Amino acid sequence: MGDDCCKSVKVFAPATVANVVCGFDVLGFAVYAPGDEVIMRLTDEAGVKIKAIHGDEGKLPLDPAKNTVSAAVIDYLQAIGEPERGVEITLFKKMPVGSGLGSSAASTVAGLFAINTLLEERLPREALLPFAMAGEQLACGQGHADNVAPALMGGFVLIRSYDPLDVIRLHTPPGLVCALIHPHLEVATRDARRIIRQQVSLKDAVQQWGNIAGLVSGLYREDHALISRSLQDVIIEPVRSMLIPDFYTLKQKALDQGALGFGISGSGPAVFALSTDQDTACSIRDAVQEHLRTLGIESDGYVSQVNAEGPRIM
Amino acid sequence: MGDDCCKSVKVFAPATVANVVCGFDVLGFAVYAPGDEVIMRLTDEAGVKIKAIHGDEGKLPLDPAKNTVSAAVIDYLQAIGEPERGVEITLFKKMPVGSGLGSSAASTVAGLFAINTLLEERLPREALLPFAMAGEQLACGQGHADNVAPALMGGFVLIRSYDPLDVIRLHTPPGLVCALIHPHLEVATRDARRIIRQQVSLKDAVQQWGNIAGLVSGLYREDHALISRSLQDVIIEPVRSMLIPDFYTLKQKALDQGALGFGISGSGPAVFALSTDQDTACSIRDAVQEHLRTLGIESDGYVSQVNAEGPRIM
Repeated sequence: MGDDCCKSVKVFAPATVANVVCGFDVLGFAVYAPGDEVIMRLTDEAGVKIKAIHGDEGKLPLDPAKNTVSAAVIDYLQAIGEPERGVEITLFKKMPVGSGLGSSAASTVAGLFAINTLLEERLPREALLPFAMAGEQLACGQGHADNVAPALMGGFVLIRSYDPLDVIRLHTPPGLVCALIHPHLEVATRDARRIIRQQVSLKDAVQQWGNIAGLVSGLYREDHALISRSLQDVIIEPVRSMLIPDFYTLKQKALDQGALGFGISGSGPAVFALSTDQDTACSIRDAVQEHLRTLGIESDGYVSQVNAEGPRIM
Repeated sequence: MGDDCCKSVKVFAPATVANVVCGFDVLGFAVYAPGDEVIMRLTDEAGVKIKAIHGDEGKLPLDPAKNTVSAAVIDYLQAIGEPERGVEITLFKKMPVGSGLGSSAASTVAGLFAINTLLEERLPREALLPFAMAGEQLACGQGHADNVAPALMGGFVLIRSYDPLDVIRLHTPPGLVCALIHPHLEVATRDARRIIRQQVSLKDAVQQWGNIAGLVSGLYREDHALISRSLQDVIIEPVRSMLIPDFYTLKQKALDQGALGFGISGSGPAVFALSTDQDTACSIRDAVQEHLRTLGIESDGYVSQVNAEGPRIM
């Protein structure tokens, strides 16, 4: 163990857009911006410790058992039979908590990727997923995989089934650029889930599964027009959009600027648009942020390619 | 017009499996067996006539306005501005009516493909679809496209949206073999639709759209294991299976023989299984037919590759 002492690594893990309009609870993709960073160091002192958390405005717990990053690392170390490892974590939150951007997923994935890198990739990358999902359970009260899976694996990821867990990395066409806008509103994921109807009409469900099938086909065919036509949600968006002021105006402004599609990122309040180039994505971001300002709502805006690689060592 | 007189063509159009387990109302694929045949001849005498129908046991109307084949041809001729064309149709029904095999779709598509061939492909193939759908409306009281679209275009076809109509030819992996078994039971499509619940739980809907997304991904990746895992239906099959005696035993027997998946073809009573080779498909067909015989139910069995080409001139 002594040989590893003081080895350290810095890891970036990406924000993610869950649901992707027509894929409620089963689809997500990763971006390059924003994302969280973790510096992790192996120490001689047994146990996982959080040295510091920067950028969270004091919101996240420092208790290793309660913080999702350290808790996931503890689970991982137990699973590989090294519960006594000494680990020191510094977390740099570079995105807001509770934003719909997969904030907790990014941190947790960065931590797991870091420990697995330090321990010479003891587990294959996809085997880290259950630990990341347990982290989500701790953070959100729901062990959903639609943020952690794309954060960990990169690109567009389908969670075909939760029980048994079946995660499929879809083809991610090159050149897709995502605009993400986080309006400074409070929308708790738990509330956002609560307002969704638990019964849906078969007619709407048929439309939705036609669209997700169209989207998946569009990704494999790299067919932007088909991707665009498929980015429609007749079930969740009509309800959740009520939590975002002027949602349909924001959507229209994004589409006017050339978005392939526009929707709520995860459970919001962040919104996203997909487009085929950087300039279009920047125009979309600007138009949406400008309209939010007219409503007196400040926001953060990000533009980046869809991230097909996932976490990376910095 | 005289130059064309007496030109004739014989066309085969395939049976189709609609729904494909997890794609209710939006997915279908074509096979090579069974299928219907049409002989069509241009005549000097104005108007569309049915010369004869073979193999229907007198069930289908000979009145050109009521028969789906002739009615679709009449629509087509009107749309291209040649309502006075003389056409004589002979229809060979080579599969049972009301079986869940897309019987009316096969006949209608054969007729439309024949007239369009005789008139030198006046319309591109996909432009024939609306005429075929109108034929389905006449035959089934529903203008569904999940039989006519694959019968016309071949392979696996997605109807992403009905309004506006958006039909996507998915990738069809080579080597998929379909076993089709038609038990001699009466299940009217209208009844089979009536028993389906019009409200579904969001939880079931999420499972279903995870599965259809998995199936589409599996087709593009040519991933048999993923196709197999995705061929699950938590919404329609639990209800419609009640119309087919011992459905779940038949399913288990098919899976035991190595089927990738097993389900109801369209609205039944035909059932189908997908597999990766001819021998497996034959074993599945035999096992299912044998069990049906123990219940005192006779059946027709067919085995063929998935048909990626659609109708063809014989």
